Amino acid sequence: MKLARFTTQGTTRLGRIDGDQVVDLSKLGHGASMRALLDACAGDLSAVAAVEGPAFPLDQVTLEVPIDDPQKFLALGMNYADHVAGAAGQGFTAPDSQTWFSKQVSCLNGPTGDIVIPRVSDEVDYEGELVVIIGERCRYVPREDALGVIAGFAVGNDVSVRDWQKRSPTFMLGKGFDTHGPVGPWITTLEEVPDPQMLSIRTWVNDELKQDGTTDQMIHKVADQIAYISQAFTLMPGDVIMTGTPAGTGMERGTYLKAGDVVRIEIDGLGTLENHVVKEA
Amino acid sequence: MKLARFTTQGTTRLGRIDGDQVVDLSKLGHGASMRALLDACAGDLSAVAAVEGPAFPLDQVTLEVPIDDPQKFLALGMNYADHVAGAAGQGFTAPDSQTWFSKQVSCLNGPTGDIVIPRVSDEVDYEGELVVIIGERCRYVPREDALGVIAGFAVGNDVSVRDWQKRSPTFMLGKGFDTHGPVGPWITTLEEVPDPQMLSIRTWVNDELKQDGTTDQMIHKVADQIAYISQAFTLMPGDVIMTGTPAGTGMERGTYLKAGDVVRIEIDGLGTLENHVVKEA
Repeated sequence: MKLARFTTQGTTRLGRIDGDQVVDLSKLGHGASMRALLDACAGDLSAVAAVEGPAFPLDQVTLEVPIDDPQKFLALGMNYADHVAGAAGQGFTAPDSQTWFSKQVSCLNGPTGDIVIPRVSDEVDYEGELVVIIGERCRYVPREDALGVIAGFAVGNDVSVRDWQKRSPTFMLGKGFDTHGPVGPWITTLEEVPDPQMLSIRTWVNDELKQDGTTDQMIHKVADQIAYISQAFTLMPGDVIMTGTPAGTGMERGTYLKAGDVVRIEIDGLGTLENHVVKEA
Repeated sequence: MKLARFTTQGTTRLGRIDGDQVVDLSKLGHGASMRALLDACAGDLSAVAAVEGPAFPLDQVTLEVPIDDPQKFLALGMNYADHVAGAAGQGFTAPDSQTWFSKQVSCLNGPTGDIVIPRVSDEVDYEGELVVIIGERCRYVPREDALGVIAGFAVGNDVSVRDWQKRSPTFMLGKGFDTHGPVGPWITTLEEVPDPQMLSIRTWVNDELKQDGTTDQMIHKVADQIAYISQAFTLMPGDVIMTGTPAGTGMERGTYLKAGDVVRIEIDGLGTLENHVVKEA
């Protein structure tokens, strides 16, 4: 199943992708809040699967970020060995343990939204990532149960402002600029992803392939991530986790995004983000 | 004006403190969501001031965290020179720029809620802090206008799990454990705080004075903080900012909190937090 948020006729709604249509989930009574829907389902999406209509043609709607109101927006840095090696030359050192930081909920952006280069930096970079969306409230999740608390997966871009990121070892400000968290194009639910550690992830800028990795290169696998952070805090339905990026970022290549660029990120079976880069007015 | 969230007869509501009473703000239509109230007011709280009743005796209600659903929960580290000096011996170095990290919204706790020592650490520490609550949507706020975007102030405890904090330079996991963000006892609105940089802040553990600072010791003043971070992202009504802690934390003293301790934090004119420490079951 594929869960989306979409806008048509000026209204944003929740939807379920069915082939070339999107089924309107308004009758479930959660407005456009994916968090409210996932919270009400508490891990059982059968009510979502049962909705029969109405539906809109997919090519006549705009897909929005599939969740815009999570309680938490978490991200893991330095989680692909080849990226860690590439970042080492840029002043980042390989961590001893999982390197977590927060992105801001206010930076969430849709699968076709513009990525804005802010007036305070020119060092804006892409990071293609597998995104996890949590499906149920949980704490102290054993590693062997960890995939079971996931609602689904999406494609993400952990857009990073490198000079701001480097100003502080906490990373935070450089990771949370407005528009710098594209996620989408929809949430592909857990049962459609046989193995989240066997997915190809590719990033293009203007049709030039920049990142070409697979999620089996993760140092800390998705289940390890959930087991680790759920020792600290309760995960909630709708919480969004970016799970790290493979090698090939602009930082490693010595080039940053510029106005007019198009960043395309694709993960096997999860769909594609295509975001245009613009300079702030 | 003092804005609160309180529970009586099993229901949590928004309220306005009037002497020894709390006026029920339910008729404004925002349920128990302080974020929704502040968002609707957009900086103008006259509708809140005009509500006449009904009211409950303050000693017959439980005060909750005054906001439990902010979009962002931000915190500044290493912001009092004497604390930075004291932390230097613990492996933390003085930063060149503002050291921001995120606390998790899920760790927000009320003014009398229990602080839980989790099963995975014994290094739980207090940090008494001035808390800022944003009142209006804003970006690129000039320093000279920055106090004007504030809805009000509160007392906070940036509870920190030191071993987890030190595992990663990003600080994040050690700052976000469940129950580790007490804020309250209410939001004292901007007009009642003539100068937020002239407030005494004191922390006691079991009636022993541990921190005794004033907000004029901040390295980065509140206005500088807002001006700086609003270059990165849009601040929203209800966003919560912890602004740093003075010297005297347990880390500096070589003692951590233990079950049975009572942590009391007081700021001039803003009220008192009094949280009991318990060991996780």
